[in-house]
Amino acid sequence: MRFLSTTLRRRLVSLSPQLPSLTSAVGLLCPRKYETERAGRRRSASILGPDLPEVWKHLESSSPVIHSPSSNHDHNGSNPTIIDGKIIAEDIRLEIASEIRHMKDLTGKVPGLAMLLVGKRRDSESYLRHKVKACEEVGITSFSAELPEDCPQDDLLNIVSSINEDPSIHGILVQLPLPKHMDEERVLSAISLEKDVDGFHPLNVGNLAIRGREPLFVPCAAKACIELLLRSGVELMGKHVAVIGRSRVVGLPTSLLLQRHHATVSMIHAHSENPASITREADVVISAAGVPNLVRRNWLKRGSVVIDVGTTPIEDPESEDGYHLAGDVCYEEALQVVSAITPVPGGVGPVTISMLLSNTLDAAKRARGFS
Amino acid sequence: MRFLSTTLRRRLVSLSPQLPSLTSAVGLLCPRKYETERAGRRRSASILGPDLPEVWKHLESSSPVIHSPSSNHDHNGSNPTIIDGKIIAEDIRLEIASEIRHMKDLTGKVPGLAMLLVGKRRDSESYLRHKVKACEEVGITSFSAELPEDCPQDDLLNIVSSINEDPSIHGILVQLPLPKHMDEERVLSAISLEKDVDGFHPLNVGNLAIRGREPLFVPCAAKACIELLLRSGVELMGKHVAVIGRSRVVGLPTSLLLQRHHATVSMIHAHSENPASITREADVVISAAGVPNLVRRNWLKRGSVVIDVGTTPIEDPESEDGYHLAGDVCYEEALQVVSAITPVPGGVGPVTISMLLSNTLDAAKRARGFS
Repeated sequence: MRFLSTTLRRRLVSLSPQLPSLTSAVGLLCPRKYETERAGRRRSASILGPDLPEVWKHLESSSPVIHSPSSNHDHNGSNPTIIDGKIIAEDIRLEIASEIRHMKDLTGKVPGLAMLLVGKRRDSESYLRHKVKACEEVGITSFSAELPEDCPQDDLLNIVSSINEDPSIHGILVQLPLPKHMDEERVLSAISLEKDVDGFHPLNVGNLAIRGREPLFVPCAAKACIELLLRSGVELMGKHVAVIGRSRVVGLPTSLLLQRHHATVSMIHAHSENPASITREADVVISAAGVPNLVRRNWLKRGSVVIDVGTTPIEDPESEDGYHLAGDVCYEEALQVVSAITPVPGGVGPVTISMLLSNTLDAAKRARGFS
Repeated sequence: MRFLSTTLRRRLVSLSPQLPSLTSAVGLLCPRKYETERAGRRRSASILGPDLPEVWKHLESSSPVIHSPSSNHDHNGSNPTIIDGKIIAEDIRLEIASEIRHMKDLTGKVPGLAMLLVGKRRDSESYLRHKVKACEEVGITSFSAELPEDCPQDDLLNIVSSINEDPSIHGILVQLPLPKHMDEERVLSAISLEKDVDGFHPLNVGNLAIRGREPLFVPCAAKACIELLLRSGVELMGKHVAVIGRSRVVGLPTSLLLQRHHATVSMIHAHSENPASITREADVVISAAGVPNLVRRNWLKRGSVVIDVGTTPIEDPESEDGYHLAGDVCYEEALQVVSAITPVPGGVGPVTISMLLSNTLDAAKRARGFS
């Protein structure tokens, strides 16, 4: 047995014995000894990496944020395109409505979508209202259930289980985030794969990640980002796209979908060192960190395209809902350098809802054997 | 229905009507009209992106490749560490062997691994021999079947199906690539999730991608890259890691695992424009393109760490096997700038085999209820 003939004392082999001298080269190689590295390391859970909260600790620049519109939008002498998500979303809804009318003509039936909300988060309630209204617009029958904040997880699981069996419902959406006493993974895993219109099931994520396989559903926000870019004529093949944030809802599926469009994707998150050094080199920046004013002018390359997925609710007594939504990007600063950008609100949000309708229609077509 | 009130002619809205002027800003916005974009676009398969072959068309630099060792390895005045995969692999195998002896003492049984090879690829046969030998070394019972090149896919599927049912076998490995008449996805999907020691099942990939979930198995080469980095004391948290190549075997799972270690990951592939501009900024470069001499000196930052996963068989009459393995990295050029590097052979390869043993042991422990 060959491995028994080696001694345990042999360690990293250097071309010279000056191993310690290179620990300082880029601050990457830590001076801790290999011995301590080995103890208990092998095959422990550490191979999957440490669990860390996704907290964005500091914004890079301390210069004041520009909020008032400037008349001097000057990237290479032309004005940036504002990518209007409302118009694109409505175009998509018209197409969906037409398909649903066709389905109804042929079968007498329409798609059904169930939406489950636990608790009284104001932004979640508002999103749900928008989704219900969008379903009405295109002819999808929506069912929504609002459960109390302290509802036992088993009650929610029982509801999911009974909707799984209901042939008139083709899509199930559980509004995230759930209250802290619930296990999101457990609840999401309970949704039937064929009704997982949010596309969060790990099998859908795996099939999205592996080229050559087809997920049943692609998460709505990721699809929305790509639709916005494709419908605006932005080329992705071979381009450098920086995705900020790595949530299962947006950042992760968007990075996977971008790779299927053959973009070169850089994934930036709360623990990234010097994120601006990467975004500044990117042709497209998609930000989904949920941190208002994270992306400043000096994070962006001149002429780049920005998709702002951030929607942080900010208290606003003057607004009808008592709050307004803030994106991740310093919008007025970005206008000075980008070639195109989505606004917040009115950018990614409406298209994301259209993608939910689209996924629900797909589910209904699949269930009814439509091509 | 609100959406009916908008006109179809409204398109991208610009702050000014000078839309055409920005199509040339960075070459991203294509001048094709939005009308043509829309026709048939919605919800077609195009959202998943076009299928493209992974062909690396050109190497960036035309300067001659340095092959002869240079005595002037001068990155910041110190000599680079050669990360010795053979020693790390043997350390891991000693630990595995010890655990297997313990299992045998307690239960009288050892783990079992089945390996299936279709056809007569010389490199595949050689990999299989190495794996069989490694199993012997640590006390895993290995079963290998070599099927003829023209074996019908159903024969292979039947064998997989019967091994799935065999309680003495805990891991099943189908050596890739399979002959062209076989559907790799179909064959890999047939392997029981609990015996998928290669970690290629989409559910394992999805559970690797989603933080907070645990895959049953992580693909061996991805685990090997991380083990090599961790055991060499290379810090990953927040560091910029460029992964070259995006295969399901190496690039994809490595990028997902690196994200769980909170690295900032850039994924480079055959269609990436100007890949060197990204790798030059990376603290760590992991190359798994399968293209000898792809990574030149000018692709690397001074002081960076390089993991070379490339193993392209090159005809070599002087070698015992009739070929030798070439990495992706111009090794002698890289030595002049990096702080640490894995050689080929003797780097990632041996550790990858140890990870297969490790995954097989994990499968056996799980099947037998060991913690």
